[in-house]
Amino acid sequence: MNDRFLRACRRQAVDRTPLWIMRQAGRYLPEYRELRARHDFLTLCRTPELAVEASLQPLRRFDLDAAIIFSDILIPLEALGCEMSFDPSPRIAKPLKSSSEIEALEARPLTDVAPYVGEAVALLRRELADRVPVIGFAGAPWTLAAYLTEGKGHEGFPAVRALRAADPGALALLLDKLAALVAEHLELQIAAGAQVVQIFDSWAGILSAADFAAFALPAVRRVIGSLRSDVPVIYFAPAASHLLELAATSGASVLGVCWRTPLDAARRKTGGRVALQGNLDPAAMLAPPERVRERALVVLDQAGDEPGHIMNLGHGILPETPIASVEALVAAVAERERRPA
Amino acid sequence: MNDRFLRACRRQAVDRTPLWIMRQAGRYLPEYRELRARHDFLTLCRTPELAVEASLQPLRRFDLDAAIIFSDILIPLEALGCEMSFDPSPRIAKPLKSSSEIEALEARPLTDVAPYVGEAVALLRRELADRVPVIGFAGAPWTLAAYLTEGKGHEGFPAVRALRAADPGALALLLDKLAALVAEHLELQIAAGAQVVQIFDSWAGILSAADFAAFALPAVRRVIGSLRSDVPVIYFAPAASHLLELAATSGASVLGVCWRTPLDAARRKTGGRVALQGNLDPAAMLAPPERVRERALVVLDQAGDEPGHIMNLGHGILPETPIASVEALVAAVAERERRPA
Repeated sequence: MNDRFLRACRRQAVDRTPLWIMRQAGRYLPEYRELRARHDFLTLCRTPELAVEASLQPLRRFDLDAAIIFSDILIPLEALGCEMSFDPSPRIAKPLKSSSEIEALEARPLTDVAPYVGEAVALLRRELADRVPVIGFAGAPWTLAAYLTEGKGHEGFPAVRALRAADPGALALLLDKLAALVAEHLELQIAAGAQVVQIFDSWAGILSAADFAAFALPAVRRVIGSLRSDVPVIYFAPAASHLLELAATSGASVLGVCWRTPLDAARRKTGGRVALQGNLDPAAMLAPPERVRERALVVLDQAGDEPGHIMNLGHGILPETPIASVEALVAAVAERERRPA
Repeated sequence: MNDRFLRACRRQAVDRTPLWIMRQAGRYLPEYRELRARHDFLTLCRTPELAVEASLQPLRRFDLDAAIIFSDILIPLEALGCEMSFDPSPRIAKPLKSSSEIEALEARPLTDVAPYVGEAVALLRRELADRVPVIGFAGAPWTLAAYLTEGKGHEGFPAVRALRAADPGALALLLDKLAALVAEHLELQIAAGAQVVQIFDSWAGILSAADFAAFALPAVRRVIGSLRSDVPVIYFAPAASHLLELAATSGASVLGVCWRTPLDAARRKTGGRVALQGNLDPAAMLAPPERVRERALVVLDQAGDEPGHIMNLGHGILPETPIASVEALVAAVAERERRPA
């Protein structure tokens, strides 16, 4: 098996830096757009064969070192009876409006509500036949709370910040319930064969360090603490330079870093306690291939020679990214073979 | 005249902390919504009597220590022949797509294209009769470049980051041209009577520190360096904790701080070289009045006893904010009278 990715997660020496791309199964691929023309987004998520087809598409084109299961961070909210749609941005039919609604939340078992998640991971694992590892994923409790209270993507997610100010106890209860759900969601994927899991805390960056430490971080710690310790966990909180030191204490073995923080600075701030993943600016992928190469080599230089770097973008790949940019990125990574450790 | 605000901008002692609120002339006020029901947004901006009416509305209700002229940061782009609309978020009819379009940009004099800006400031100054100072404002060159290339608000503004990767020379040229325009826009407001100006760099936070130092910051420095030195300048870059030390070198006498960075931490990071403005979380204003009071007092405590704090929110007031929250904020500021210096 190509185990570069697993080795880098564990900060072991590798022959070259492993590479995967956030949203590598996505709209920049013509074959994905073709798949989506025939099936809507939720149908892809809910049909294991289709989710696996989407997951495999980028691997057929590019020399990538991991496959991530095609899904969405909001999927486990179905266990709370939450109705959602994607247009393409997510909408939740009935956002949470009161602490009594939070108290009333009860989760049904995910294996009953969303059995397709485990089925898709198991099928992807079989199809890959150990060619590369499988990544499972989930949204962090704070980020799910942001969507559940706001009902949709909205700059700064004021509803969850308002809840923090008005009723911190209700917020803490919501985060408790979501932490249990997220843990169940990740365990289910690990049991089905996911070899690494990534937790997306997409909106942690709206918090001050004090509120991150009081609310979002303990919820993530609870999730990670409940998982099997032999499965590496990647924690990714973008636009959160000010939270990086705290994020390094989440229990994750890898921190995803967005493009705002150079990896050498991230390494200093996290004191070498975690591996790092990232962080080429996805917008740099809209430049000509030679510029993509240059910018990718800068990221590899900033990552340095210590083991424990996974090459990736600093956020999801943009739908308008040319295929040639991905090829240039793959070639830039191949160009820099690691010195023997 | 009530000169608390001017004194705090200059880090002089005050009897109590001055207060104004970003977007204080805005949709949370019933009388503003009533005004907007009769006139569209651009008509308000372009008609001095209406802009002044909107500017004065919050002063009639609340004991605030400054008035800000009603306008929009995109207004001076009219001098570049840029067509725009608001629905309510801004749209630019023809976003910049190439370096040849950037080279071709030529600005007509703002006094010809938008004479109403100076007229509105002068009228506001007359109407206030020195009751409180008048704030003029502009968008920072980087933030205007983000809108000009993207054409609308879009998370992370990838178009301007793509330009940075593809053609940094073209970006630098665009920022040069915008710096000249922004300087002209602020000079015009100062000549008309603005006693303080604020520069909004709303999207600086999408940059790494290196790119901020290479692109956004020099452009802001050029603007501030060209202004009369007796007019205090406030520089506000939200979601930019990682840029705070650099922002303190912009030449501004005051830094606006968003809710993510506690003022005591901001004071340490900026070494007391600038006054600070902010930073109650606008979402906290959606909580009951007693919670608003508590959270406002925390901000005042974090600001400490040194002179040089202007109370404000950490971002614009949200349209759904209850009037009672603003009353609670005003009362909390009044409650904490400054010890004599």
